[in-house]
Order: sequence, then C-alpha cells, then structure tokens
Amino acid sequence: MKSSFCEAAMIDKSTLASYFQHAQNQICQALCIADGQGTFRKDTWQRAEGGGGKSHIMENGEIIERGGVNFSEVFGKTPEKILKKLNITDASDFYATGLSIVMHPHSPMVPIIHMNVRYFAMNNGLCWFGGGIDLTPHYIDLADARYFHQQLKQVCYQHHPDYYAQFKSWADDYFFLKHRNETRGIGGIFFDRLSATPAIDMAQRFAFVKDVTQVVVPIYTNFMHKNHALPYGESEKNWQLLRRGRYVEFNLIWDVGTRFGLDTNGRTASIFMSMPPMAKWVYDDAPNDVKAQATLKLLKKNIDWVNS
Amino acid sequence: MKSSFCEAAMIDKSTLASYFQHAQNQICQALCIADGQGTFRKDTWQRAEGGGGKSHIMENGEIIERGGVNFSEVFGKTPEKILKKLNITDASDFYATGLSIVMHPHSPMVPIIHMNVRYFAMNNGLCWFGGGIDLTPHYIDLADARYFHQQLKQVCYQHHPDYYAQFKSWADDYFFLKHRNETRGIGGIFFDRLSATPAIDMAQRFAFVKDVTQVVVPIYTNFMHKNHALPYGESEKNWQLLRRGRYVEFNLIWDVGTRFGLDTNGRTASIFMSMPPMAKWVYDDAPNDVKAQATLKLLKKNIDWVNS
Repeated sequence: MKSSFCEAAMIDKSTLASYFQHAQNQICQALCIADGQGTFRKDTWQRAEGGGGKSHIMENGEIIERGGVNFSEVFGKTPEKILKKLNITDASDFYATGLSIVMHPHSPMVPIIHMNVRYFAMNNGLCWFGGGIDLTPHYIDLADARYFHQQLKQVCYQHHPDYYAQFKSWADDYFFLKHRNETRGIGGIFFDRLSATPAIDMAQRFAFVKDVTQVVVPIYTNFMHKNHALPYGESEKNWQLLRRGRYVEFNLIWDVGTRFGLDTNGRTASIFMSMPPMAKWVYDDAPNDVKAQATLKLLKKNIDWVNS
Repeated sequence: MKSSFCEAAMIDKSTLASYFQHAQNQICQALCIADGQGTFRKDTWQRAEGGGGKSHIMENGEIIERGGVNFSEVFGKTPEKILKKLNITDASDFYATGLSIVMHPHSPMVPIIHMNVRYFAMNNGLCWFGGGIDLTPHYIDLADARYFHQQLKQVCYQHHPDYYAQFKSWADDYFFLKHRNETRGIGGIFFDRLSATPAIDMAQRFAFVKDVTQVVVPIYTNFMHKNHALPYGESEKNWQLLRRGRYVEFNLIWDVGTRFGLDTNGRTASIFMSMPPMAKWVYDDAPNDVKAQATLKLLKKNIDWVNS
C-alpha cells in the first residue's frame, strides 16, 4: 500500500491547513449573508496530544437552526485504534487536517447538508485526501435532487471522467443506515484514500478537494433561498424530527468521521455540531402521508438522480 | 476460557426463555397499574436467521412517555462480528435469550431506568449470564440514589458477598460516556460472562438473574409514585431533553447490547425502544442553574451511593 508518489515535499501541510481555514471563513461569511440573521460563534480549541481546531457554530439563524463549519489540524502519536483500523504497524505519528460542515435548517422543506474534506498523513510516507458532500432532504424533490447531483457531477468532471460515477456510488454505500435499510438522504459524493498515482499527483488531488470545498455554498444557498419560505405544518415538522433521529443514528453508529474524532480524542462539542438541535423517535414510525411515503421509497442506493 | 462446569444439561434453555417471557408479562402488568393510563402494544417478530422476539411498548402513558419491555430468543449461525469480538474460533452456532427494559418518563423529576438480563451460549459449551440495572435521574437526589443502590445491594447480598461491590464498580465503568467524561447516571450494577465455577453453578447464577429481574418493578414504581407529581417547568424540561441526548449518545456509541442487536440482525424497531421520545443537542450545553450543575458534578465513577 505504501505509495512512493506521496512525499511530504509534494504537498505542504501548512498550505492545506491555511486553505481550509481560509475556506472556513469564506463559507461562514457566505452562509451569514444567505441566512440574513444568524452569526457564527467562533471557538478555538487545543488538543492535549497535539494540534487543535476552530469551531464556527451558528444557532438560531433565520433559516439555519444549527450549523457548524469546523476546521481542525491534529497530530501526534497515532492512537492504537487508528493503527489497528488502518492495519498499519510501521508508523507512529499522524497528521490530519480538514474542514467539516453540517447545516440543520428550521424548515423541513430545506435539506440538511454535510460536507467534509480532509487530508491524512503518517510518518511512513502514506498520505491521502478524503471527503464528500451529501444532501438529506426531509422530503425528496426530484428536481432538487437532479440539480444537486448535476452540480457534483460537473465538479467531478473537471478533474476526472470517472470521479462522479465512482464517488457517487461510494456515497450510496457510505451514507447508508444498514439497520434501517435506508440511505441517509439522496447521497452525493464520497471519496477516501486519494493518494498520488502515476497519472494523478497530490496537487491535482488537492485541486479537486478545493473545488469540492467551493461548491457547497452555491448549492446550499440555492436551497436556502428557494425553499425556506415554502409552507409547512405540524405534520412536516414531525417528519423532520423523525428524519433527524435517523441523522443521529447514522452519525453515532456508522459515521467514520465521528468515530475518528472520538478515537483521536477530538473536541466532543465540535464533533457533535453535526447533531440536530432536536430529534424524535417513535416506536412504529411508518408515515401515513403520501409525501413522506414517497420520500422513504427513494432512500435507496443506485438511483440515477442526474437523469431522474 | 472453556468451562467444563457449563453444560447444556445444567441449564435448560426453554426454562430460561419461559421465565423471561413470564417476567415480561408480569412486569408489563405491574407497570400498567403503576402508570394508571398507558397500555403496552405487543408485537411479535421473527429473525430470518433463527428465533425472534416479543416487544411490549408503551407510548403516551400518564407517567411513562415511552417504555419498552422486550423479550428475545435468537439463535443460529454466529455472526462473524460476534466471533471476532469474543475471539472464538471453535464455535459456529449461538443461542441468546434475554429481557430488556427501558422507561422514559414524561416528567424530568422521574428517572430513566434500564434493566437487562440475558443468557448467551455457544455450541462449544461456553455459556454465561449477563445483565444489569442502571438509573439515570435527570436531577440526582441523594436519598433516591441511596434507596436505589440499597435495593441493588440487598439483592446482590442474597447471592454473594462480593457481587454488589464488583458489579457496582463494573456498572460505573460500563455506563460511562468517555467522550463526555460523564457517567450516564448514578450507575447501578452490571455483570457479564457469569459462567459456572466450582463454587457457583448455573442454577445459582440463574437464581441471581431472576432476583435482578424481579427488583426492577418495586424500584421503578417507587420512583413513579413518589416523583411524578413533583412540579417542574420549562427549564427542567429543557435539561431533560439534553440529558436524553446523552442517553442516545451512550446507546448508539457505547452500548454493547445495542451493538449486539444490530450485529445479529435483530429487529431495529425493538432495539431502538431504548431511544427517548425526543432529545435535544445544544452546542455549548453547560447548565446555568444550580440543580443541573449539582447533578453534573455527581456524574462520576466510584461514588459510594449507599453511604452518600
């Protein structure tokens, strides 16, 4: 697995970390403007074992009920759990930096969005990028789903003809609640361990990661503007709370990023910005209304959203 | 690890399963009477790979907002994940039966209770009992905590002089949210892999498990009667929702029982009866009021509740 194409010299950690921090500020600014009311509370935290992060949290905006845009840069001795998971024995230190976004809107008519981009390196020379974007509409609108996937497809195509198909399928598998036999939402793209190859160097990987980072604002502000004034009532709010329950289940049971954060002794308050403000569980939660039933039927893998 | 004292003949599976089912009905009846309004919805489910269960769920009782009393008896080919966790290579089939209880009250002044008793066996002759009871008061009252632990101590002392101290300490470690550095509540007792020894046979282990099963109703109905009419307002309700968030975190991140259920392809709706009806997450949830602050200070291991 050790790649000779991945050398420290090829990708400068401080360039990455600076870019993620710059993007964090830029994204927060754009989301503040789109929200019109909310502001981000900014916290800086240190990790005892090395590194730390900056959490930017919005609570009780006009459109966003809670959202977080988190930067982190952590390093030091690799925790045993991580080494075991990666099946690596020849590395003792790691370095990881990344940016994570989750937005929970007040309105059930506005989707939840999640974006993560990250870089991981070990002192044995292994290094890679990972990340993804996925959308969780409380009600799936096919035109919205098409738009979302078209945006992602476009970003991917600028970098590699296979990226969209590969990473869309990877997202279907990753953002999946096995215990519910449901996808989390309409998926998106997911990628991991993107190292250098003879054909693609780390600078090109980074260029792709930057474009993924940049696409989240135009996509999400589009949904914020378009959908936040749509009418809804008690029934839609109730359905939103149940879907948020699923979001909690995914994050705490399946999400590798959350586990990584907990396993590396990350800052819990920052990791848990992905939690919805409020969530609900009902024993038998099969919905009565047709809109919710139609959405449930679409929580499947392998849907060709671009041509839906 | 293979115990020669644990033979199939010593403990009859159908006796165990019958007992757990009998206890399920008995407990539900007692809780209905104590609640005064709620009734249990009864569902039977089959597991494709072998076995199934009976879920008894109360929603919207007078005192209990949601509660479940679940019986299950599952068997068949041991899932890979389980074999790996147990580090066992010489067994292909397993058998597990048990009873699980979780009660979430409407009132933040009434604690959440959880009880589980279970028997696990493999076709290599290994078999054991496991289980526990723990209490999660939203606000810790020292007299209530003392009463709770005294009840458990008494049950334990009837079976072994070391049980209470051992199992109380085990509960402190088990019902612990490492990522929050908080115990879930005031703990209780937890035990696992109680096999036969030269001094204690499986019949004696079973007698202990039966007494643990029987103590949950008197303990919980005491709290239902005593506390449900205590006054509370918006602030207490808000704190309850935050504590329920922690309950969700424990169940989905740390609880081995939940993982076992998901890993053995158990019935998700039944496993998730342990989820609170509604839960809340706030970015910085440090409480302002003294009562909540006092409770937070007591969410620690190694508190001698009996003498508190």
